[in-house]
Amino acid sequence: MRALVYDNNQASLQTAIPFPEPQEDEVLLKIRRAGICNTDLELIAGMYDFAGIPGHEFVAAVEQGPTDLLGKRVVGEINVACRDCDFCRRGIPSQCRNRRTVGIRRHPGAFADYLALSVQNLHIVPDTISDDQGVFIEPLAAALQITEAVHISPRDRAAVIGLGKLGLLVAQVLRLTGAEVIGITRRESQKRLLEKWGIPAAAYSETRAESFHIIIDCTGQAQGFEDALRLVQPRGTLILKSTYNGLPKADLTQIAVREIRLVGSRCGPFESAIRLLKMGLVDVTALIEARYPFDSIIEALQHAARPGALKILLDF
Amino acid sequence: MRALVYDNNQASLQTAIPFPEPQEDEVLLKIRRAGICNTDLELIAGMYDFAGIPGHEFVAAVEQGPTDLLGKRVVGEINVACRDCDFCRRGIPSQCRNRRTVGIRRHPGAFADYLALSVQNLHIVPDTISDDQGVFIEPLAAALQITEAVHISPRDRAAVIGLGKLGLLVAQVLRLTGAEVIGITRRESQKRLLEKWGIPAAAYSETRAESFHIIIDCTGQAQGFEDALRLVQPRGTLILKSTYNGLPKADLTQIAVREIRLVGSRCGPFESAIRLLKMGLVDVTALIEARYPFDSIIEALQHAARPGALKILLDF
Repeated sequence: MRALVYDNNQASLQTAIPFPEPQEDEVLLKIRRAGICNTDLELIAGMYDFAGIPGHEFVAAVEQGPTDLLGKRVVGEINVACRDCDFCRRGIPSQCRNRRTVGIRRHPGAFADYLALSVQNLHIVPDTISDDQGVFIEPLAAALQITEAVHISPRDRAAVIGLGKLGLLVAQVLRLTGAEVIGITRRESQKRLLEKWGIPAAAYSETRAESFHIIIDCTGQAQGFEDALRLVQPRGTLILKSTYNGLPKADLTQIAVREIRLVGSRCGPFESAIRLLKMGLVDVTALIEARYPFDSIIEALQHAARPGALKILLDF
Repeated sequence: MRALVYDNNQASLQTAIPFPEPQEDEVLLKIRRAGICNTDLELIAGMYDFAGIPGHEFVAAVEQGPTDLLGKRVVGEINVACRDCDFCRRGIPSQCRNRRTVGIRRHPGAFADYLALSVQNLHIVPDTISDDQGVFIEPLAAALQITEAVHISPRDRAAVIGLGKLGLLVAQVLRLTGAEVIGITRRESQKRLLEKWGIPAAAYSETRAESFHIIIDCTGQAQGFEDALRLVQPRGTLILKSTYNGLPKADLTQIAVREIRLVGSRCGPFESAIRLLKMGLVDVTALIEARYPFDSIIEALQHAARPGALKILLDF
């Protein structure tokens, strides 16, 4: 089968990769569509300790597995949990101490014709959700992990910094709370999308220090975090929605004195994401910038790496 | 009157300082006893932008003021609030945007014979609380700001790092929740105190990574924060109870991926501290390492700066 393989600091499309052999609790998935996430770009830039097949945003069809799943369109949670550690027992498999992560850590990913994945990780995609939309279930769930982790009140004033692919989903999830949400961006393409959804945009230079109850930092940059810390009110909450390059210097004294809450946030609830998509409450297709056949994945990855690029899809 | 004055990077005891003149909403306090806090030491080490009289832990008698307060023993909250900004209106004067802070920012402190302070800041010290104990009301309130800011469950496993004057109060407040509390220290004097209160101690080298739901970092050191981050479980809470020297490098990616909560914490509820002291639930006198007459304050400050020194009191 075809697969994108990252090894020895190089990503290449290979065509003679052996088919995955599903283990006892796994099904064989035929990938229908996949999306490129910033994590994929960081991974093939060598920022993770990873070798193998990346990719974790996908819609697939069940090719081998339990009869009731055969032929069904599914998406898959990315954390493959041990079901035995204290976190699994507490019902938090996404923080399983022994987890493997699809396309990120010790588990092959979805940039391939086929993927073997634990049946526990699957969610059926309703017929009313297209493949294009389904690819966004994973990142939309990650955006929903914000409202899972933190109570956002409809009286709050919230800002999103870093309005890339994930930030634009985050802004849409936040606006559903009734809170006043502002997107901090100068980029015209991002402002146009925010405007379409009724979300005001402001340049960072137009913002006042300490003027937001809630800030979501989707920048993954030290400067973004510093800006976020300046914007958040005393006793406000700053949510980290990205991994960061290196070790930014964080002003912990400010966090103590201004009594800021910093909340890390990772993978989220798939079923909630599916509900919002079914109800048409989140617009994901507007985030699609381009689509490529899987054979052109190298070109697709280059496109995805352009500054400001939105979602790039891969058709299988 | 006598006062310790910090100016031009030097602290000196001066004897001809003019008496403070209370403003309309202020009373004149005669200081009876004061305590030396790490903030005072940092302040006279030039780490704050401050000139004037430091000191913010004290018990005083009301010398001039409303009749019902005259002669009463009182303690004072350190944040002098404007009563007009959004934080004051929300009932959070400790985060007042225009606040002055007794002995720390734009307000004279208690290392002096007399102090003029807003009547709003005063709390009467019950007769059953001695002057020695009363000096601890301010730092004990700061320790209680932890349980004000974060829900600590009796099922939690909590660790305190940095068991100096404040950390030892924090450990005592935490043990009242019924949670399993462990003090991370190698210092014999600190271990003896913890043992007295039934709190187990462990050296950092004896601890397991990711083994605590709650960590309180009272170290104020970059290394302490790094240790705390290693000890806290995924989805756990790390409470910052000190200001930090400089800008430590904080691994924000770990905070995001492990979904840690970082909570800054500052001044706390005086009335709750008074209740706990009245009920004898917190042992503060064991923290008194030495007492000096106010005339020997320079020597007292030198003593307080010794590594591992506990509370140094000043008698007026």
